[in-house]
Amino acid sequence: MDINSLTKKIYTRNKIAVSRAISTVESGNNDSTLLLKEIHKKTGKAYRIGITGPPGAGKSTLTNELINFYRNQNKTVAVIAVDPTSPFTGGALLGDRVRMSEASTDEGVFIRSMATRGSLGGLSKKTIDAADILDAAGYDYIIFETVGVGQSELDIARTADTTMVIVVPESGDSIQAMKAGLMEIGDFFVVNKSDRPGADSAIMSLKTILMFRKHDENSWLPNIIKTVASEGAGITNVAEEISKHHQYMIEKNIFLKRRKENSKLRIKEIVEDIIKNKIWTGERITNLNSKIEEVVEGTTSPYSVADNLINDFKNEIT
Amino acid sequence: MDINSLTKKIYTRNKIAVSRAISTVESGNNDSTLLLKEIHKKTGKAYRIGITGPPGAGKSTLTNELINFYRNQNKTVAVIAVDPTSPFTGGALLGDRVRMSEASTDEGVFIRSMATRGSLGGLSKKTIDAADILDAAGYDYIIFETVGVGQSELDIARTADTTMVIVVPESGDSIQAMKAGLMEIGDFFVVNKSDRPGADSAIMSLKTILMFRKHDENSWLPNIIKTVASEGAGITNVAEEISKHHQYMIEKNIFLKRRKENSKLRIKEIVEDIIKNKIWTGERITNLNSKIEEVVEGTTSPYSVADNLINDFKNEIT
Repeated sequence: MDINSLTKKIYTRNKIAVSRAISTVESGNNDSTLLLKEIHKKTGKAYRIGITGPPGAGKSTLTNELINFYRNQNKTVAVIAVDPTSPFTGGALLGDRVRMSEASTDEGVFIRSMATRGSLGGLSKKTIDAADILDAAGYDYIIFETVGVGQSELDIARTADTTMVIVVPESGDSIQAMKAGLMEIGDFFVVNKSDRPGADSAIMSLKTILMFRKHDENSWLPNIIKTVASEGAGITNVAEEISKHHQYMIEKNIFLKRRKENSKLRIKEIVEDIIKNKIWTGERITNLNSKIEEVVEGTTSPYSVADNLINDFKNEIT
Repeated sequence: MDINSLTKKIYTRNKIAVSRAISTVESGNNDSTLLLKEIHKKTGKAYRIGITGPPGAGKSTLTNELINFYRNQNKTVAVIAVDPTSPFTGGALLGDRVRMSEASTDEGVFIRSMATRGSLGGLSKKTIDAADILDAAGYDYIIFETVGVGQSELDIARTADTTMVIVVPESGDSIQAMKAGLMEIGDFFVVNKSDRPGADSAIMSLKTILMFRKHDENSWLPNIIKTVASEGAGITNVAEEISKHHQYMIEKNIFLKRRKENSKLRIKEIVEDIIKNKIWTGERITNLNSKIEEVVEGTTSPYSVADNLINDFKNEIT
């Protein structure tokens, strides 16, 4: 691959080049690392927005409306949609993707799906890599649309500058369920389809949970915004809240601090992924497999097998 | 720590010794590894049951009822309850835990909570370690009660011999949401509080999703069982289903196959955890921190920093 000619095209926001670069990143080969090293210097200008929430909350519809909003302000927008592809359902949310891709005839909009299918882990790493490509390409906003189910999806949303969690009035009961994961990562909350019954009670549930969030007079207090995304209602408020959160972070000197923290986590993940690949060679997997019988029979313990594998790994990289 | 005297007491199902051993495992020190290597030969006899589902589905109540059922059959039961402790809620589900601990005046019942608090990952590893202690102690059944929210909790449920997913009639909407994670791991499903409206429609939703699960004439088809755990209704059916699934796995020669697969994943996780600890020494974290400024400014890339850290690690273990 001619990386120089590809990067040049990326910097002009050439969609085909951007698309090819993201495919390279998805494949995770050597070219991918070279490319990412090269384009990194052009990154840092895009504002990254995480949109997450349970399936059916209207994330795609709201994303569409945000695209329209930013396009009317003459800003460019890239979307990375992370599909939770179940091993037995094939491909969920396809309908949404198709509908969303309508926007992509617009030169200022780029939409890409990243699937979990077939990849054991590494999803958040690849998604962030793809965001760097889009950032280097000069998109003003990068939206990560994720389903708040798996850990990787949460990790992705977490890396955004501003993350909103979307619920619907019917989520009342499940808002309790979300406590453990989704609730912590929201910089603000959106109650979508808020013309339906139960909207106020969903807001009350959110408020109750947010009350327990550690805060002092200087803390950012997550707002709750009502929308009816399918009619475009409330979208201006959502965009204003994103901007308000951005301003707040700049004033409190936490904007760069948050980006640094994310960079740190990202580098740790890169290091661990590389090391994992070095550990699990075909030979060492065969070695592991040959010991499992004894482990299940109890003649050797998992920790003894682990010791041997680690010693073998040490000898190899010595 | 005198490991020999501790293991002897563990083998007599001495609750204080078992409790101490699990605390050692939670601390993750060197004694922990020695202890786990030692007791492994006594493991393999307990039957491991995973109970998972969204908060409020009645997992603890059903666990209580299963304890009673097995105790009436003169079997001993140990429960490991994994709490999703949110950084800002402190400790969820405390009420349930307190209520459940009533059972623990019974010599044949052991209940232990394992928290996610403060531990960055490693939860599933420690939980499985604790299960080995309980297995070596001679409990007939080990129940993992987990909330189907985080990845580690799913990983834990997945390591059981039989895993049931509990939902309630109100889960109708969220059953769709569970597709990605919970649905795949259920060997059977329980619709609890099935005297409430919506039970039949929850069952229909489950059936529809299960239809998409890959199966042939030899496959195990997950059943759906109705319970009202608070009144003890349906518990016999749940216990029968566990036993039926066990028999099925033995007949099809997949019981040991599944245990081997779990052992393999467990060893991989142990190896990766040990290596991660070796990588992230205080010194190397300081090294990483010192580069973050440049990464965010764009003068160096995350992948270049990762390269340097990996080279440094290689040199160290050489």
